[in-house]
Amino acid sequence: MNPQAYIEEIASAARAAAAELAVTRGQKRDQALRACAQAIRNGACDLQVANGKDLARSDELGLTDAMVDRLRLTDARIESMAAALEQIAAQTDPMGQTLAAYNRPNGLRIEKRRVPIGVIGIIYESRPNVTADAAGLCLKSGNACILRGGKEAIHSNLAIAKVLRRAIAEAGLPEALVTMIDDPDRAIVPAMAQAEGKIDLIIPRGGETLIRAVAQAATIPVIKHYAGICHVYVHADADLEMAAAIVLNAKCQRPAVCNAMETLLVDSAVAEAFVPNVARQLIEAGVELRGCERTRKLCGDIKAADEDDWSAEYLDLIAAVKIVDGLAAAINHINTHGSRHTDAIVTRSIAAAEAFVAGVDSSSVMVNASTRFSDGGEYGLGAEVGISTDKLHARGPMGAEDLTTYKWIVTGDGHVRQ
Amino acid sequence: MNPQAYIEEIASAARAAAAELAVTRGQKRDQALRACAQAIRNGACDLQVANGKDLARSDELGLTDAMVDRLRLTDARIESMAAALEQIAAQTDPMGQTLAAYNRPNGLRIEKRRVPIGVIGIIYESRPNVTADAAGLCLKSGNACILRGGKEAIHSNLAIAKVLRRAIAEAGLPEALVTMIDDPDRAIVPAMAQAEGKIDLIIPRGGETLIRAVAQAATIPVIKHYAGICHVYVHADADLEMAAAIVLNAKCQRPAVCNAMETLLVDSAVAEAFVPNVARQLIEAGVELRGCERTRKLCGDIKAADEDDWSAEYLDLIAAVKIVDGLAAAINHINTHGSRHTDAIVTRSIAAAEAFVAGVDSSSVMVNASTRFSDGGEYGLGAEVGISTDKLHARGPMGAEDLTTYKWIVTGDGHVRQ
Repeated sequence: MNPQAYIEEIASAARAAAAELAVTRGQKRDQALRACAQAIRNGACDLQVANGKDLARSDELGLTDAMVDRLRLTDARIESMAAALEQIAAQTDPMGQTLAAYNRPNGLRIEKRRVPIGVIGIIYESRPNVTADAAGLCLKSGNACILRGGKEAIHSNLAIAKVLRRAIAEAGLPEALVTMIDDPDRAIVPAMAQAEGKIDLIIPRGGETLIRAVAQAATIPVIKHYAGICHVYVHADADLEMAAAIVLNAKCQRPAVCNAMETLLVDSAVAEAFVPNVARQLIEAGVELRGCERTRKLCGDIKAADEDDWSAEYLDLIAAVKIVDGLAAAINHINTHGSRHTDAIVTRSIAAAEAFVAGVDSSSVMVNASTRFSDGGEYGLGAEVGISTDKLHARGPMGAEDLTTYKWIVTGDGHVRQ
Repeated sequence: MNPQAYIEEIASAARAAAAELAVTRGQKRDQALRACAQAIRNGACDLQVANGKDLARSDELGLTDAMVDRLRLTDARIESMAAALEQIAAQTDPMGQTLAAYNRPNGLRIEKRRVPIGVIGIIYESRPNVTADAAGLCLKSGNACILRGGKEAIHSNLAIAKVLRRAIAEAGLPEALVTMIDDPDRAIVPAMAQAEGKIDLIIPRGGETLIRAVAQAATIPVIKHYAGICHVYVHADADLEMAAAIVLNAKCQRPAVCNAMETLLVDSAVAEAFVPNVARQLIEAGVELRGCERTRKLCGDIKAADEDDWSAEYLDLIAAVKIVDGLAAAINHINTHGSRHTDAIVTRSIAAAEAFVAGVDSSSVMVNASTRFSDGGEYGLGAEVGISTDKLHARGPMGAEDLTTYKWIVTGDGHVRQ
């Protein structure tokens, strides 16, 4: 079957399943989510067998160690997939929430009510937990999902989807709510992104190349982030010990992810007191530093940063360091070179924190906290279906609520317009 | 200057103006809105002189009577532009609203705060009041706007923008918040729709041809509706007198607009009692009817509807009429042939109303009220910057709140991630 016809067929089944889900009670969806969690636990052995097949091919596919690590379904990761589904089940039902309701002077009753979006396509790489997280958030919010994972995780993804579909069916809901695409044809991706009227939204997750390819092919809405070029700005009035701990954590705790710090900005007022000390700690932690001229004067033997470094997403133990003259310069640097993902200020000043929060045009702004907290789980969303640096619809980590839209319901008693 | 460079230049000025506006207090924006309203009133004479120039060219441009009517700036229309600006000023400030805020178990404070989108491009035809409405809603919500009106209204639009810019400057805000494009080059439209990173959102308003052209050219987000194929469904349990009044109003009160009824669906249970009577009233009001076979059996000499009629947006005194067997058939017809704009049910049954509201996948659903109420002003939004049948970000009539996004603000006291 050609990719368009294939997508049309599965999207049509998904649409019918979504229509059925849209009129269920929250209780029923939450029961299905808890059944999915239990099924993931009970199916751990099958999942690890399937995962073993993917791991066995990782050399052949040329995966890096970091990619193999992300692919591996350890006991702990299987348990955390199950736990995330239970957390999603425990959340308030977003469906049917009244976002606004009021009477007009003529007696018309106006209500803005939250409803599901419909059919959501998710295109992703590597981490098989995305399969369970995305399916769980869609189920919670009344949507059907069509999942397209990477070829490196195909056995793991299919095994997870199979477990979820069976649990969903046993809970009395249509299994077409979760469809995992098993066809490796690369033309499936543009076919999904162009399925106007069939799929309502595409969320791509993975490397920038994948995301750009999806966004460029798309004729339907896409929510995405291209990169995470995150900054920590150490303000003149920062607690320098706190600042060092945040910088170390933001850079080193997990350098390969999108909310890790890539550039450190230090206010010139505290540069002498702060830079040599934090540089030493970063270097001891294995970080390669690339500094501006003023930074290099303060801490000697580090590489010079060039223009590209200010816009680099290293995803590795590398950091750019720049000394800036004041808050406005820091904000300007971030808005010019950043990716509108997550940026942090360390300061004791209310005025500086407020000015930074207002001035930085990013989806998440941290005050005295590590950029690493920019995450659906950390924000209490249970899981995340993606992180958005777009400005429309959803921004930052996206949970179940972000997979809804609303409709206006207008009730009269025979009202006609004059 | 080429269109790209031209758009880049004005968008860059608009971006700087928006950044300045983003840190103003609501009071100041409301003062500017009221100053704009007063300036529109004081400038009525100038506006009508400029409008006269457009009207004088209407023959030459081949405008229809309906278009000339929409173009004309009567005293009443000038007053209602001013009144809309005052209504917008009177609304609660959407900027800075906290959409959610909570503490996490680890003590992190998470806040989701409403912020402006940035620079909004609006591309429209005919009605010059859009200039004032759009500028007013953008000003209220902290955004800068770049306006591109139709050539038939260029003098009127430029005159309105000039009045607004002067009032904005006198109120101490940057006049680049409102930019009216005076260059007639058609290449400006795709240049706007492709101004990635310069313009954050495009809202096209006008005929379907214009909107499709913008959506197809766009590489930046577009919020839109293509057509308004609105239905009234007369349920088995309807008050038939109320139903007739709603149908007449929905079809005849202003047939050329997107929220007018195009197709009447009548439940077979009440068809005999309702159809001949309402058909006679519609025909007396000058409406041409196109009926399904069962309709034609009941009311004799009317045209047969063909398949195209079920998806037609007549924008005229024409209506398609179909008899359907029950609520599910009505919902199915609407979801298949409708445009997700506005659809109404007339019924006395709570269960039928709720099932219709849940089942119809439209941005506005009316219960016992005319489709003609689907309008920003009627919903209490003061004005509307457009009506969306998209599912993302904003749906239905869009007011000031729909021109905002949010940012996550995370506050810790040195929190690092474990």
